[in-house]
Amino acid sequence: MRSSLPKVLHRVAGETLLAHVLKAAPGGDGAALAVVIGPDHAAVAEEAQRVRPQAETFVQSERLGTAHAVLAARAALERDADDVLIAFGDTPLISAETFAQLRQPLAQGAALVVLGFRPNDPTGYGRLLVENGALVAIREHADASEQERAIGLCNAGLMAIRGDVALSILERIGNANAKGEYYLTDAIAIVRERGLQSIVVEADEDEVRGINTKAQLAEAEAVMQARLRRAALDAGVTMIAPETVFLAADTVFGKDVTIEPFVVIGERVSIGDGAVIHAFSHLAQAVVGKDASVGPYARLRPGTLLGDGAKIGNFVETKAAQIDAGAKVNHLTYIGDAHIGSKANIGAGTITCNYDGYGKHKTEIGAGAFVGSNTSLVAPVKIGAGAYVGSGSVITREVPDDALALERAEQSVREGWAKRYRDAKTRAKSKDKSHRA
Amino acid sequence: MRSSLPKVLHRVAGETLLAHVLKAAPGGDGAALAVVIGPDHAAVAEEAQRVRPQAETFVQSERLGTAHAVLAARAALERDADDVLIAFGDTPLISAETFAQLRQPLAQGAALVVLGFRPNDPTGYGRLLVENGALVAIREHADASEQERAIGLCNAGLMAIRGDVALSILERIGNANAKGEYYLTDAIAIVRERGLQSIVVEADEDEVRGINTKAQLAEAEAVMQARLRRAALDAGVTMIAPETVFLAADTVFGKDVTIEPFVVIGERVSIGDGAVIHAFSHLAQAVVGKDASVGPYARLRPGTLLGDGAKIGNFVETKAAQIDAGAKVNHLTYIGDAHIGSKANIGAGTITCNYDGYGKHKTEIGAGAFVGSNTSLVAPVKIGAGAYVGSGSVITREVPDDALALERAEQSVREGWAKRYRDAKTRAKSKDKSHRA
Amino acid sequence: MRSSLPKVLHRVAGETLLAHVLKAAPGGDGAALAVVIGPDHAAVAEEAQRVRPQAETFVQSERLGTAHAVLAARAALERDADDVLIAFGDTPLISAETFAQLRQPLAQGAALVVLGFRPNDPTGYGRLLVENGALVAIREHADASEQERAIGLCNAGLMAIRGDVALSILERIGNANAKGEYYLTDAIAIVRERGLQSIVVEADEDEVRGINTKAQLAEAEAVMQARLRRAALDAGVTMIAPETVFLAADTVFGKDVTIEPFVVIGERVSIGDGAVIHAFSHLAQAVVGKDASVGPYARLRPGTLLGDGAKIGNFVETKAAQIDAGAKVNHLTYIGDAHIGSKANIGAGTITCNYDGYGKHKTEIGAGAFVGSNTSLVAPVKIGAGAYVGSGSVITREVPDDALALERAEQSVREGWAKRYRDAKTRAKSKDKSHRA
Repeated sequence: MRSSLPKVLHRVAGETLLAHVLKAAPGGDGAALAVVIGPDHAAVAEEAQRVRPQAETFVQSERLGTAHAVLAARAALERDADDVLIAFGDTPLISAETFAQLRQPLAQGAALVVLGFRPNDPTGYGRLLVENGALVAIREHADASEQERAIGLCNAGLMAIRGDVALSILERIGNANAKGEYYLTDAIAIVRERGLQSIVVEADEDEVRGINTKAQLAEAEAVMQARLRRAALDAGVTMIAPETVFLAADTVFGKDVTIEPFVVIGERVSIGDGAVIHAFSHLAQAVVGKDASVGPYARLRPGTLLGDGAKIGNFVETKAAQIDAGAKVNHLTYIGDAHIGSKANIGAGTITCNYDGYGKHKTEIGAGAFVGSNTSLVAPVKIGAGAYVGSGSVITREVPDDALALERAEQSVREGWAKRYRDAKTRAKSKDKSHRA
Repeated sequence: MRSSLPKVLHRVAGETLLAHVLKAAPGGDGAALAVVIGPDHAAVAEEAQRVRPQAETFVQSERLGTAHAVLAARAALERDADDVLIAFGDTPLISAETFAQLRQPLAQGAALVVLGFRPNDPTGYGRLLVENGALVAIREHADASEQERAIGLCNAGLMAIRGDVALSILERIGNANAKGEYYLTDAIAIVRERGLQSIVVEADEDEVRGINTKAQLAEAEAVMQARLRRAALDAGVTMIAPETVFLAADTVFGKDVTIEPFVVIGERVSIGDGAVIHAFSHLAQAVVGKDASVGPYARLRPGTLLGDGAKIGNFVETKAAQIDAGAKVNHLTYIGDAHIGSKANIGAGTITCNYDGYGKHKTEIGAGAFVGSNTSLVAPVKIGAGAYVGSGSVITREVPDDALALERAEQSVREGWAKRYRDAKTRAKSKDKSHRA
Repeated sequence: MRSSLPKVLHRVAGETLLAHVLKAAPGGDGAALAVVIGPDHAAVAEEAQRVRPQAETFVQSERLGTAHAVLAARAALERDADDVLIAFGDTPLISAETFAQLRQPLAQGAALVVLGFRPNDPTGYGRLLVENGALVAIREHADASEQERAIGLCNAGLMAIRGDVALSILERIGNANAKGEYYLTDAIAIVRERGLQSIVVEADEDEVRGINTKAQLAEAEAVMQARLRRAALDAGVTMIAPETVFLAADTVFGKDVTIEPFVVIGERVSIGDGAVIHAFSHLAQAVVGKDASVGPYARLRPGTLLGDGAKIGNFVETKAAQIDAGAKVNHLTYIGDAHIGSKANIGAGTITCNYDGYGKHKTEIGAGAFVGSNTSLVAPVKIGAGAYVGSGSVITREVPDDALALERAEQSVREGWAKRYRDAKTRAKSKDKSHRA
């Protein structure tokens, strides 16, 4: 990945690769989750705990092959005789359905299930050799005959082993090979020796993509975004150009939502019925009310709660801001750490001065208030309901309900000044030129 | 569509589906247009009237099949013995040329013409059975033999019937079928019984896409945008990344226009010779003059008239604004309900305060005026030609030509205050920490 | 191209078509470069000089075919007996490697090398007739037999001729054909007559795309962007959606750089280790320091130098601005012709008023200074280190280190005014309505 960040902590659709796999893995009562990590990977262990608090972490101190990695979690395997599902932290596109399908043959007598897929180009993958419905071997590409290389069905790496035999099969895997490593794929021969059955379950290539480069990370993002966009369209969201809309896995849409082109939606965003997200908008951790209008060029940052029918216009940033029903913040404004009452109108260029260099302070604007353009609201400060603030004011003290507040000097005019200034500047320029000439 | 909006009022390239079909349909003298709508669809009738004022609307009170729908317009059919073209409100990609081709064989003796197409996957479509150039039947997918299912030519639904036989054929269609409905496709058998001729005319699959889901709506938009982009390129518009530019069907381009990536152009926009629309710009109902420069991040809203060589820069919004030749509005500005004279220079952060909470008012800025940064222009207000407004002023009264206007208090300085403030804040923080410890 | 700009001066990835070809062409000691241009194309000659100062320009006064064009540079050919490589100014995707491969067979005895490619659709291209490894003829599409048209290998136009025979071969080409022009392709027959050898070297179709329309220009841009994105990913840049990121050929990336969707990067941009470029950002001629954060919606214009850990937030424009380590310019701000010291904090809505209508002036802000929101800094002006500027101030005179500066009138409040105003407006409206009724 050419990165100092551990691979499984890279993100797809806003979530780490690890989180995607852990969320797809079976949960519920009795489902134990063992995460095997490398040494010095405390951040990976933390992420596993964050996503699935019951997950137990095991450190593989040396990298001696896939079976060796699984046995790093031996304590968990010994404690729990349930079926074992083996997945990888770098295949984030795997679905809960595929996990379920992988496990299902175990209940019908199979001892081992291997996930297969049919890549466009199978070069390099281990081929699955199937006879009479049973998996008889996994042949590495390098060892495969011409005939075997013609097989399209390949090993995705994921595996399920029946609980009553799992530990004994894993322990039986040896390292008598060129590299001296322990390979999970050797489990097939062991299963067959014991007269037990191995089965292949097939998945779509997209689900089993492993990620080893930034290019593959981008491809996984594209697959995930295509899934999210398709689901949004199927749920009735209108998108003029879905390929230009970026969604998060947890985006919630109401009925008759419209999203224009070039919109980025981060985590924890909910968009109410009939709301419109206009072009070039960016939302994260925000709630958009019914029939609200956002953008174009609006940025809703975390903690934005937009009431029904509220309107956030162009070049507006909101953060930790509750903006009640019908309020309007139409242009070139920053609303941070604020509460804006219903039907209030915030003029263009208004800034909530929420930071004094040391701490953040709150601005409260009452219902129906009118804040003139280019106003600075120096927090903590309160504008009363129905109050009116004159354009260009710096408001530092509370404005009572229904009052007018102004901070403004007298407008002074000097007749003819601009002409004299212009003439002087023009003379200076021509003088400058003649000197240089 | 999972929407409370009637399907044909959804939009592609800024126009309703219905409008696209109505605009492609034959017009001119003597062309009668009958629009059949469901009950409670007044909005559809209105849209039909808006697009083609001569269109007559008929309500189909019960949904008893396609032929039943056409006969809802019986009054129009009785009045007018001209050829009948039958199209659907949800196929917005149909072209005027295809309508013409569909009709043309009627003049050469055919009684009925059916529009066919060859879908990538014909599953589900009715197959067109052609013998010796004549259409002998439309076989529904469910009823088709294996051999018939191998036929790639399918029924697009659109139809033309010769005027002298149209009504009698339509009236002859019965409902002796499982659902008890009246199907247009039964017309073929009737035509053949009478010894008349049915013909197939083929169209591209893209033209006959019907829209039943939000995903199909997005696909239609993609097809339409590809057509519009291609036409713009062919007309000489330079687009670095045409796939990131969204156009409207009525966008007008001059010679040597450049459009950078990520631009959205809505309805009724005209862009003059040599103008450049920079990245991340958004235009609607605006006129851009010759050699004008727009963006990046410029939003031209309806009623913007940009003169030759004028410049609108980043994070600038204009609305109902005439901005004359050579004027510059370079940054972070809102110009609404305003007239800016030629070569005027509007500083960064300028706001026209056009709204007082009740009505909109106008700002006039004379030619060659210079408005300093962060100025608020409280409309109605007038800045004279050649006048100069000092930065940060709130201008509430007229500024004469060539005058300087200022609204500003004296700058006051308190030496050492910031250091004392910093020290106090730092002490407070450490005290706070020791209390908590 | 439907443009008044000479074709080879159109741009791909920010560079002219001509510049791309000249940069790919062999350089180094002894490499002579002759550029043949049409009459009245001084701008093309200038561009050639700019890119490769040693390039010599020759004018082809009449357009009499490709060989005639090459012989316009006869003086260069006579002076220099080295191998001759012939390329076209409108094939910007050609690589230095392909130029090298084209020349290489000359060292092994071939007299002539022609660049071939295998287009998806060979219709219209000249076919390369090869026998026993030797090129025996180029057959124009119009003259080709059915059998010859089945040949997929086509003439890309580029050619290499061995130095010792180049001039004599070129001079031997006649114009005894329908149009009376001199064609380079006739060189093959001449080479064969003399018992010398012609060879074909193959290139990818993408490299030899010629550009004759705006659509082809856009396709070339797409190919070039795909190359640049792939190289960035391979170098470890994280891009969520590389297809929405536009790069320049000279963009420099540090380690662990992240670029979010919808970003446009122009020429001469360098991005340091760990920096993040957020969505909707636009950079040109700018240096971004280590761990700096840019955007979303940030525009870094030429001359921006962003220090380590500095932050430029949303709706911020910078130009000719040095912003030192750890400084923050978070929202709705214009910083032009300025130096901001380390860890300074610039409030939302701050504007450097750098232009007085005649010249540009500089703003200096010391380390650790705090500039309140909506401040106007009227340049030339200096804010001292550690100074504090109150929100909404217009600063016209120097602020000493550690001082507080304020420009502000007293806040005045008129109790109940807003209610009276509202009531009056409401009465006026209802009166207005009753008059109209």
